Amino acid sequence: MFSPRSVAVVGASDNPQKVGAIILKNIIVSGFVGNIYPINPRINNIGSMKFYADLNGLPEVPDLVIVAIPAEKVLTVVEEAGIKGVKNMVIISSGFREIAEGVEREKMLTDLADKYAINILGPNCLGFANNVKPINATFGQVVTRSGNLRIATQSGALASSLFDWCGTNELGFDQLVTLGNKTVINENDILEYWLRHPVVAGGNDEGLSGVMPIGLYLESIVEGNKFLELTKKISINNPVFVLKPGKSQGAVEAMRSHTGSMAGEDEVMEQAFIEAGVMRCENLGDFLDLAKGFSWENVPLGPRVAVISNAGGMAVLSADAIEKEKLELSKLSEEAKTKLKSLLPRINNLLNPVDVLGDALADSFGAAMEVVLSETEVDSMLVILTPQLMTQIEKTAEIIGEMSRKYTKPIFVSFVGGGVTSKGEKVLNSLKIPNFDFPERAIRVMGAMHRWQKSRGAISYEDKVYLSEAGLDEGSIRSIVVEGRSSGGVDNMLANQLMEKLGIMVPMSKVVSDINEAEEFAVRVGRPVVLKMSSPNLLHKSDVGGVITEIYDQEQLRRAWGELGKKMEKLNDLTGIKVQVQKEVLGGVEAIVGVKRDSTFGKVMLFGAGGRLAEMLEDKNISLLPMGIEGAKKLVARSKIWPLFNGYRGNEKYNLEKLYELMVKLEALMTKFEEISEIEINPVKITGSGVWAIDAKVLLK
Amino acid sequence: MFSPRSVAVVGASDNPQKVGAIILKNIIVSGFVGNIYPINPRINNIGSMKFYADLNGLPEVPDLVIVAIPAEKVLTVVEEAGIKGVKNMVIISSGFREIAEGVEREKMLTDLADKYAINILGPNCLGFANNVKPINATFGQVVTRSGNLRIATQSGALASSLFDWCGTNELGFDQLVTLGNKTVINENDILEYWLRHPVVAGGNDEGLSGVMPIGLYLESIVEGNKFLELTKKISINNPVFVLKPGKSQGAVEAMRSHTGSMAGEDEVMEQAFIEAGVMRCENLGDFLDLAKGFSWENVPLGPRVAVISNAGGMAVLSADAIEKEKLELSKLSEEAKTKLKSLLPRINNLLNPVDVLGDALADSFGAAMEVVLSETEVDSMLVILTPQLMTQIEKTAEIIGEMSRKYTKPIFVSFVGGGVTSKGEKVLNSLKIPNFDFPERAIRVMGAMHRWQKSRGAISYEDKVYLSEAGLDEGSIRSIVVEGRSSGGVDNMLANQLMEKLGIMVPMSKVVSDINEAEEFAVRVGRPVVLKMSSPNLLHKSDVGGVITEIYDQEQLRRAWGELGKKMEKLNDLTGIKVQVQKEVLGGVEAIVGVKRDSTFGKVMLFGAGGRLAEMLEDKNISLLPMGIEGAKKLVARSKIWPLFNGYRGNEKYNLEKLYELMVKLEALMTKFEEISEIEINPVKITGSGVWAIDAKVLLK
Repeated sequence: MFSPRSVAVVGASDNPQKVGAIILKNIIVSGFVGNIYPINPRINNIGSMKFYADLNGLPEVPDLVIVAIPAEKVLTVVEEAGIKGVKNMVIISSGFREIAEGVEREKMLTDLADKYAINILGPNCLGFANNVKPINATFGQVVTRSGNLRIATQSGALASSLFDWCGTNELGFDQLVTLGNKTVINENDILEYWLRHPVVAGGNDEGLSGVMPIGLYLESIVEGNKFLELTKKISINNPVFVLKPGKSQGAVEAMRSHTGSMAGEDEVMEQAFIEAGVMRCENLGDFLDLAKGFSWENVPLGPRVAVISNAGGMAVLSADAIEKEKLELSKLSEEAKTKLKSLLPRINNLLNPVDVLGDALADSFGAAMEVVLSETEVDSMLVILTPQLMTQIEKTAEIIGEMSRKYTKPIFVSFVGGGVTSKGEKVLNSLKIPNFDFPERAIRVMGAMHRWQKSRGAISYEDKVYLSEAGLDEGSIRSIVVEGRSSGGVDNMLANQLMEKLGIMVPMSKVVSDINEAEEFAVRVGRPVVLKMSSPNLLHKSDVGGVITEIYDQEQLRRAWGELGKKMEKLNDLTGIKVQVQKEVLGGVEAIVGVKRDSTFGKVMLFGAGGRLAEMLEDKNISLLPMGIEGAKKLVARSKIWPLFNGYRGNEKYNLEKLYELMVKLEALMTKFEEISEIEINPVKITGSGVWAIDAKVLLK
Repeated sequence: MFSPRSVAVVGASDNPQKVGAIILKNIIVSGFVGNIYPINPRINNIGSMKFYADLNGLPEVPDLVIVAIPAEKVLTVVEEAGIKGVKNMVIISSGFREIAEGVEREKMLTDLADKYAINILGPNCLGFANNVKPINATFGQVVTRSGNLRIATQSGALASSLFDWCGTNELGFDQLVTLGNKTVINENDILEYWLRHPVVAGGNDEGLSGVMPIGLYLESIVEGNKFLELTKKISINNPVFVLKPGKSQGAVEAMRSHTGSMAGEDEVMEQAFIEAGVMRCENLGDFLDLAKGFSWENVPLGPRVAVISNAGGMAVLSADAIEKEKLELSKLSEEAKTKLKSLLPRINNLLNPVDVLGDALADSFGAAMEVVLSETEVDSMLVILTPQLMTQIEKTAEIIGEMSRKYTKPIFVSFVGGGVTSKGEKVLNSLKIPNFDFPERAIRVMGAMHRWQKSRGAISYEDKVYLSEAGLDEGSIRSIVVEGRSSGGVDNMLANQLMEKLGIMVPMSKVVSDINEAEEFAVRVGRPVVLKMSSPNLLHKSDVGGVITEIYDQEQLRRAWGELGKKMEKLNDLTGIKVQVQKEVLGGVEAIVGVKRDSTFGKVMLFGAGGRLAEMLEDKNISLLPMGIEGAKKLVARSKIWPLFNGYRGNEKYNLEKLYELMVKLEALMTKFEEISEIEINPVKITGSGVWAIDAKVLLK
């Protein structure tokens, strides 16, 4: 598909405004060296270029067929292509799943692709471009400069802006693929293809970095686990950065309307990216900045940054940004300071940032850079230039280029202004030295590149296996699930039974029908007790005030009983709500433990602060499953409440073995019992003596 | 100073590279209409322009003298100017406080300014420019386009980049002042001057917004309370936004070296900005973006944003950014949807963001804008354009301009690309419609403008008075302070006495010299008890494990005693460390309450989570003083632990009167006792029954 020897364009046209005509022209001018077959039954030829009436009439089976005709006619062409034996198609046409009327049409398209075993890119896409074996099979104005950058995007319009931006910045690329509706070919196919073709352009010889950066714009991810497996393999050698909207409800709705994408939970996605070493960009600006940084500069091997600036204020601002990105300012050696002082006698700032002063000429920049780049304590450099009247903008850019050739340490630049400084930018672009509008944007890129460098070593590639020795009492659990199903859901008492089967303690509790029964129970088990509503339909009982704690005496119990009764009257649906009285577990740390099934990445586990801490702490930590006992330990250690377990201020450390055991059992449970869609234990109370499930919810499919 | 009728330039030169020559030329070409006196003893005249040997020889006393000569010669000129009767000077020369050798020179300069009552701008600055009564008294390439923007900056280099950026963006300004070392004239003087001259340029007639935005780059603030008073007064009508480095230690050190600035605590600064309605920019990009947004567009009157885009992906990304800025996507009415459908038949996305599709021509943008701008549920609009082959970039910009003239609702634009889109940008700039590289940058500006609109109404202008009726037992407190002074500091026991005088409960405690004494005390007051180190020199005893809690029996006490002893042996300085045993207060919420003196803003109060919650919550809330009882209530309500007091999950509300009373008394204490530099009570334990000072530290000056 991406390196065809022959290509047919269905919908090629003599009207230069038509998409088909533009694609045909783009293929020709992009330097494609194979056979081109324009197809349009109304045209015989344009100049010396022969047109064909249909695919059937072609003298060979083309490696690739591009379709740019109205949606209604697409299926006929695909059928025709299938019969002809075509194996690769790009369908540019829109009018499929992204509109209500096109859903059925897209289904039929998929069926045809299956029937004839055709690779289809699109529909509803802009096509693709390959600068290595040149072909521009898009209707966009593609940059033909080759480079090491690879882009796959689910938005064609984003590609148009990217082309424009790459043109201005003189940033070349290797391949760019727009995915459209992803009916047949999706991001995983592209990633797999790129994984198998690791080195095409680049290398340091041409001023490019040694890596092949991959940028992805995705609205949804097809088969999360496949994506994870592929990006992990890629990330060890090449950076993957992604722009993935969907943090807000507004974006989720807009995506559904845009490409018909239904995304999984954003927090799960975020965690998946972390586990795979994939960088998530906050916005389009960051995405483009990373593309430039990774394409042109070596990755900083450590966090220590040296700054050279002809503007004190900018240097000061950059120091804040460096700390924000968890980078550090390098400490200069005494030797370097002495050298700087002798080379630049008027310099007074011998700290880093190095202020070469406002009137610094190009050679002052060069001299300072040379001294600082030779320091062993420097991992990367940022050069900041503001346009003073005497500033030699282009010459400084050239000197930066010299330094970049001489030293392997990565150099990032910010020429700040945008007017007179743009001449310097042009020089920097031609030398493939990444320049950014503002120092803080350069620093964000430096931070991301350094984080990637650190994370790529930490990616876990081992195949994690589900622990069969988790020791589930499967028989008993099965009968609990069956009972839950038959009674319309798992209520509190049934959930408690399940907890006990998982080996976690549950405070004694009882469903009671009147206050005397409650009082009797409290006396029997000892106070304090908790009074709470119990129903499989009432998921957030705390929010409706359905839990009253710290009941120490008869009077308090009476008050609580009355209060709970009043609250229950206010609820719309009282069906099946019961009152439960429970012995209260005092002390300890409240956590939440949960497992559920994400539509993209499958089973995930949640751990964080629970109970009253939860609202204040925003402590939601997710791990994809399987994770095993080691994964459980790591997940708990990521939590903000970890310090409370881990010898807080001289207190004893908690023994968390029981907690880890619970988590592993929950993992096994979700694997063995597909009927269970979600379990949430909130709070889990972890005390010196054990782990208690204070309140557990179990949802069945 | 800023509107002189005559100006002398000391250091004017016939060498066009010299700063003095550049300034002279800048004044002439800027359209200055008064007398100009170049001063240089070596030159008689250049062309028809007569030069003078010194100030003394001038035919009049010039309104303004600009000095651009080596630092060593500056003082002589200032003395001469003083004798001549000059009242306003700009000193460009560097070589003062910002270098070690110049500290004394700057002191002498201040003395001369005092002696002759001279206003001095600088030294070590770039000068100033006034586009209203035109004069460019800088050595930079100043934008002469007038506008409504006012800038004061402590960095001259930043001004150079700003000029360049303003030139490219066609953004005009009213006045720009570079402050340099702020020896005489500082930011407060400039703010006061601008407060008194509220309207100069602008108004909507010229396409400008109705406000006079003020942008500040400051490394330090002189007289915080004056700054606060002025910015509060300005903020009610005109937005003030500030770029203030200093969040990191690196920046603090770099500032000291750059302009010799010593900043107060950053968190106090941050709170001061909030109280004054001043927007703090995160970085230079935001600063410039706000300058453009506030200069050209009306402030959105509400949070509801409509988005029109020819790119679905960009629209989706913008939805996330809108939520991040706490703005909302407007809901479109059914009527609007019907209209959109009839005007743009192929449209399928009838949500907001409105996707006019990739092939939208300018009139489609216009039609969609018109429908949406007429909606009452829309407060502002964002238009996103990506450059497709058929996109009419300039024509779309013109149509946006038409819409902007027709509707008062603010319109923000993002033409994304930077290559072919730059033609459209030029049109937008000429129409004074703010365009931004990326949609998310536009949305950040929209968010900041909306927040300002909300905050300006909430600024408290009333003069808060110190509550003399706080009811301090001044006599007893005085003797505690005196005893602390004489014994080298206030130890735990003395601090506890102070707490009791402030009406807050202190758990019974005793300094003990052996374990038997400790055991005896524990038995007498009842267990559990706490064992802790006590010394005025040991400020963070928890960090060294100097506090052991929950001692329930003799065995635990023995263990704790041994442990504490071992830890004390490890400390470097044992002088004065004692062991204290204290009855433990169980339950309740742990908070921190503190007061201290900030070098910029004076007395401030701190409230937040204390004890074990503190590390996890990062809950440090600051209020400037005076604040009174209402201020105390607001401060506590801002804390993350507020929900714990305020009827958490059906629990009873805490009575916090005692807490507020404590805070008001601490405020009074700091006002009456200048000797006290800082008090920190951590934790304060707030229980159902009262407020306890578990551990108090008191520092004397």
